[in-house]
Amino acid sequence: MTMDLTFLGTGSAYPSPHRGASAVVLRTEGECWLFDCGEGTQTQLMKSQLRSSRITNVFISHLHGDHLFGLPGLLCTVSLNLNPSAVQPATCVNIYGPQGLRRFLRVALQLTSTQLLFPYAVHELEPTADQCPPEGFLSPEVTADNGSLHPQELPGRTIALDVSSDCYVLMEDKRFVVKAFRLFHRVPSFGFSVQEHDRPGRLKTELLKELGLTPGPLYGRLKAGESVTLETGKVLNPVEVLEKAIPGRKVCVLGDCSSLLGEGGIRACHRANVLVHEATLSDEHREKAVDHGHSTPGMAAAVALACSAQRLVLYHFSQRYKPTGQHKEGEEDDVLELRRQAEEALQGTGIEVSLAEDFLTIPIALVRPR
Amino acid sequence: MTMDLTFLGTGSAYPSPHRGASAVVLRTEGECWLFDCGEGTQTQLMKSQLRSSRITNVFISHLHGDHLFGLPGLLCTVSLNLNPSAVQPATCVNIYGPQGLRRFLRVALQLTSTQLLFPYAVHELEPTADQCPPEGFLSPEVTADNGSLHPQELPGRTIALDVSSDCYVLMEDKRFVVKAFRLFHRVPSFGFSVQEHDRPGRLKTELLKELGLTPGPLYGRLKAGESVTLETGKVLNPVEVLEKAIPGRKVCVLGDCSSLLGEGGIRACHRANVLVHEATLSDEHREKAVDHGHSTPGMAAAVALACSAQRLVLYHFSQRYKPTGQHKEGEEDDVLELRRQAEEALQGTGIEVSLAEDFLTIPIALVRPR
Ligand SMILES: [Zn+2]
Ligand SMILES: [Zn+2]
Ligand SMILES: [Zn+2]
Ligand SMILES: [Zn+2]
Repeated sequence: MTMDLTFLGTGSAYPSPHRGASAVVLRTEGECWLFDCGEGTQTQLMKSQLRSSRITNVFISHLHGDHLFGLPGLLCTVSLNLNPSAVQPATCVNIYGPQGLRRFLRVALQLTSTQLLFPYAVHELEPTADQCPPEGFLSPEVTADNGSLHPQELPGRTIALDVSSDCYVLMEDKRFVVKAFRLFHRVPSFGFSVQEHDRPGRLKTELLKELGLTPGPLYGRLKAGESVTLETGKVLNPVEVLEKAIPGRKVCVLGDCSSLLGEGGIRACHRANVLVHEATLSDEHREKAVDHGHSTPGMAAAVALACSAQRLVLYHFSQRYKPTGQHKEGEEDDVLELRRQAEEALQGTGIEVSLAEDFLTIPIALVRPR
Repeated sequence: MTMDLTFLGTGSAYPSPHRGASAVVLRTEGECWLFDCGEGTQTQLMKSQLRSSRITNVFISHLHGDHLFGLPGLLCTVSLNLNPSAVQPATCVNIYGPQGLRRFLRVALQLTSTQLLFPYAVHELEPTADQCPPEGFLSPEVTADNGSLHPQELPGRTIALDVSSDCYVLMEDKRFVVKAFRLFHRVPSFGFSVQEHDRPGRLKTELLKELGLTPGPLYGRLKAGESVTLETGKVLNPVEVLEKAIPGRKVCVLGDCSSLLGEGGIRACHRANVLVHEATLSDEHREKAVDHGHSTPGMAAAVALACSAQRLVLYHFSQRYKPTGQHKEGEEDDVLELRRQAEEALQGTGIEVSLAEDFLTIPIALVRPR
């Protein structure tokens, strides 16, 4: 199963002709999962190889415009481009994000008389009281959704922090478990971890043949982890005939933050194959970055190190940092300097550092254990 | 005083890499007046020669996403790029549009914790009951703004139709009078007319000198239209010493529509220098266009003719029509065909037809009468 991550917007604060506003797509088995949806995301999607009709899950890290303002328009356009006479019923688009997201979307769709050809549901995460400065919390009147659903809206869940694991469990299916965890920013902000389940190793077919077993239902039961009693009376334990399990991949995308909050994030991101972390400003501007609830490459590197990530990808750059090809010799604010700073902080750790650019795709390969 | 019109988005339904969503800027004396603000308008502005900080008035024709979804982000970005320590106080941005606009903007700004460095006011136009099909009206609960202003919001007016003139008077100052008028679309939609006041003709200085008058305060009084009594006792009437008045320019921008409603639009657009009218689909698709509340080139031409416009500019093209340079030989849906259809309908009338494209600028010259 292929899996890759495509950056549709890597700029902070607002979209520009050089960098779109925040939006990242995780593609797996033909589904697209969208992380944040700044203004212009639908146009960036059209310019990419991805298909917006494949979006099944949307994760909004926090309610700042540069992560959110593209969402109503994206849903409209996905709907406009669907075939209204399609036979199969449209699947529900699940949207996860902080409290207030449900009302934002509902008001935007209602006031523009938008009808969608598919249902959607907004699942809201309850922030904790220490997740941002007091002035960053929205009052209950502002976030209240008053209960009257949009015609295509299905009731969403309200998800509270699971205190024991210090995270929010968003969904779990046969393939993945998806969690959110708390970040510290100017408003409640979240990171997301997508953990693929481990899968059983291949059957040692040579060995099975030696034991006199031919391919058939027995193979399936062993592969599924069941013990099997042979005709000889011998009990065959699956670990004896299976190669090592193939570890599931883990991709973590963090919203704006000056730090993680609690242990949940470190745990949820532990040994991530790819950790996507913001680096709005360079290390020299660390004080200003923290003041605004943002990070520098050195700060992002420290997070990658704390959770033993394999690869750190930086994004959400101040618009002053032009993409590499567009940066002129001698100009200040070279985005490559941001990579150098993270690399320096991670020297000797084996953690790889990449800079995201709009339309960069990072494949995430399965690694079979030797 | 120079005046020009720049198209930032000429596509219908949604923005695409070929055509932005609806947005047109009228520039005059360093001010920018924005007509509609689809998603991505701020990025289109950055690509243009215009400066978003100069936006003083915004006119939203109707509450469809492709005319509206760029507005919250645009205001955020204008504010972010202002100098917070600027000495002069920021001027209020006046925003005009249909009922419901105030709540849309307020909810979007509130939920994203947006603070602006300038005040804004939303002035809402009350639609009439015949302005769209019954299902196109928003319920009062959806449009109600509940009265609690955003911290940077100044109270806006609610403007009812002036029945005698069949139009809405939005503003009038020394230079302009701006009116809105009713259109028929799927939801309440409006057109806007910007009428520059006529200005007095030049003084006939040769004649004044012959009369023994030298430049001074007297000249100013004559130019301002005052009669003046000379030392000889003769009363000098300004018309005797002024060239013909220079007629003010008129620019009209219409929102989505399948027709005008009432006589107000024809009157407000009478002898417009430039009439900007949608042409979503070609004449062959007239029935479909009307079904969706839209127009074809032939329908737009009929409006231009009815109001004796000097120039008709078509915009809001279905995204199937690629810009001229990007259209491939032999491909159907040639946008030039839309111009041909309008030209054919206007043959012999002297009305000029233009196709808008993103970033096209049309200068609107003062015409001195001979
Ligand atoms: Zn941000
Ligand atoms: Zn933020
Ligand atoms: Zn439209
Ligand atoms: Zn419309």
